[in-house]
Amino acid sequence: MYTPNQLQEVIENAVRNINYPAHPERLYEPIRYIMSLGGKRIRPVLTLMAADLFNGDIQTAMPAALAIETFHNFTLIHDDIMDNAPLRRGKQTVHEKWGVNNAILSGDVMMVEANKQLSMLNSTVLKDALNTFNTTAQGVCEGQQLDMEFEEQQVVSITDYINMIRLKTAVLLGGAMKLGAQVAGASVTDAEQMYEFGENLGIAFQLQDDILDVYGDPEKFGKQVGGDIIANKKTLLLLKLKELANESDLMELEQQSINKDHTDKIRNTTALYDDYNIRELANVEMRNYSDNAFSALTSLKVDEERKTELFKLAALLMNREY
Amino acid sequence: MYTPNQLQEVIENAVRNINYPAHPERLYEPIRYIMSLGGKRIRPVLTLMAADLFNGDIQTAMPAALAIETFHNFTLIHDDIMDNAPLRRGKQTVHEKWGVNNAILSGDVMMVEANKQLSMLNSTVLKDALNTFNTTAQGVCEGQQLDMEFEEQQVVSITDYINMIRLKTAVLLGGAMKLGAQVAGASVTDAEQMYEFGENLGIAFQLQDDILDVYGDPEKFGKQVGGDIIANKKTLLLLKLKELANESDLMELEQQSINKDHTDKIRNTTALYDDYNIRELANVEMRNYSDNAFSALTSLKVDEERKTELFKLAALLMNREY
Repeated sequence: MYTPNQLQEVIENAVRNINYPAHPERLYEPIRYIMSLGGKRIRPVLTLMAADLFNGDIQTAMPAALAIETFHNFTLIHDDIMDNAPLRRGKQTVHEKWGVNNAILSGDVMMVEANKQLSMLNSTVLKDALNTFNTTAQGVCEGQQLDMEFEEQQVVSITDYINMIRLKTAVLLGGAMKLGAQVAGASVTDAEQMYEFGENLGIAFQLQDDILDVYGDPEKFGKQVGGDIIANKKTLLLLKLKELANESDLMELEQQSINKDHTDKIRNTTALYDDYNIRELANVEMRNYSDNAFSALTSLKVDEERKTELFKLAALLMNREY
Repeated sequence: MYTPNQLQEVIENAVRNINYPAHPERLYEPIRYIMSLGGKRIRPVLTLMAADLFNGDIQTAMPAALAIETFHNFTLIHDDIMDNAPLRRGKQTVHEKWGVNNAILSGDVMMVEANKQLSMLNSTVLKDALNTFNTTAQGVCEGQQLDMEFEEQQVVSITDYINMIRLKTAVLLGGAMKLGAQVAGASVTDAEQMYEFGENLGIAFQLQDDILDVYGDPEKFGKQVGGDIIANKKTLLLLKLKELANESDLMELEQQSINKDHTDKIRNTTALYDDYNIRELANVEMRNYSDNAFSALTSLKVDEERKTELFKLAALLMNREY
């Protein structure tokens, strides 16, 4: 069995060796750029881990892993345009560097590149892989749409919110794992189980992110603690609080949403969260999904020993304080 | 053999029967909208005609035809954003109606829809079809990139210009035909021949468009005669003139490019074209490609009788005055 770190290196190498056409330079340069910004390559690592779990050859599964990573990076380019984001992984976003039109088009051709990768898979698994990939890609687009719409909406239910993060983030983790399983010849049931593992892990991870934004260790959390509070972002915590708070606390929350003193805003909003025990309620919700993830992996009929690396990775992802 | 009109109706019906998801509504509504704006459905008609030519069942080929049509309409949404176009087929463009972010994302999911259509093809032809489709899609993106770049460039060679229209317009016609042939089980050589037919026809058609912009019958030409001249668009005619004109005529051309009186601008620029016999030179260039197209179809080893409808369609496309 490979460790995640080993696979990350294999993928890093494979990404470096992708040959994009030389011309038109301005079309392909942004692709090389965003693909080289790195990151943990978590999605393609999951694809290869899933393939490895079912005794699949990781090089045979590589086109699926690269398709997933390429697609993911394509969504980053287009999402950054929509979110008007100046920075991605500390570097200029593609549309800042090359302009919006160029960023739209480089993204488009990147989706084609992802499909080209995928089409290199063996014919025997191609149709199933395409179905998984397309369903996944469609879900991600739907998630981004819902995310944009929720920003404009006054009221968003927790069910709708979790469905949004499921689509925007978690289906890609689920799809990545399912793809890896399918390519390695796993049964339909096993591939579906891997999907469940990935999707539930993805939701749990995202909910944990919401919690850590408020309660994370500032020394370890990668982003600014309270960033979501400052931005009035609709997170699990905010939506739970809105459900539970009495009228006067809702008015206080409303007041805080326009508080220009960020330190004060974070302190007062966090106090409201504390009053309603939101941290624990959110933890319960999160654990619900991480439990689902672990039990999907537990019930999988595969040598227990082969599951070790995936359990370790999942535990690592779910026990972070950063 | 089916006639183009019959196939257009079959496609129109199939397009109407595509079931896009109901939610998120704002993501899928633009797709229904642009797909319903109609047009001649020339690309999917070519796919089905190619399949029919090789005795393929047109319903079996339908997923390929719909993939091509869906992809084409996706490019219209994104191109209209990049070109800042207010109207498409006389109606509001998607980004005007739903905003740029929505238009980007609906386009993205439309590319996924195209791939979903394609993946419904029989497994036996799927890999070849994917290769043709992805190569085609990539070419179209490259063509759009070059088109945008040429707008900023002072000097564009005729070779580069024809390569741009080849990529932006003609490869999709070639790809549409090749797909139809592949799906019907045509040999590699025959499928390639169909590609040549479609691509050359596409280039010839686009060059004819350049000519008709200046010399078309105003009563029959669908667009405003002289529209390219008013917009200083780099067409075959303008590039040829720039190659041939002497210094004083080049200065006159430069003058005309900033002439605010459009009628005067069209008259004077056309006079320059006439001085250098540009119409005939452009016709020679165009006929070069239409000859290539016809000879690709002629040399195809298929019952002559079966070629009739394609020959008729090509002749119709190439002898229009509109």
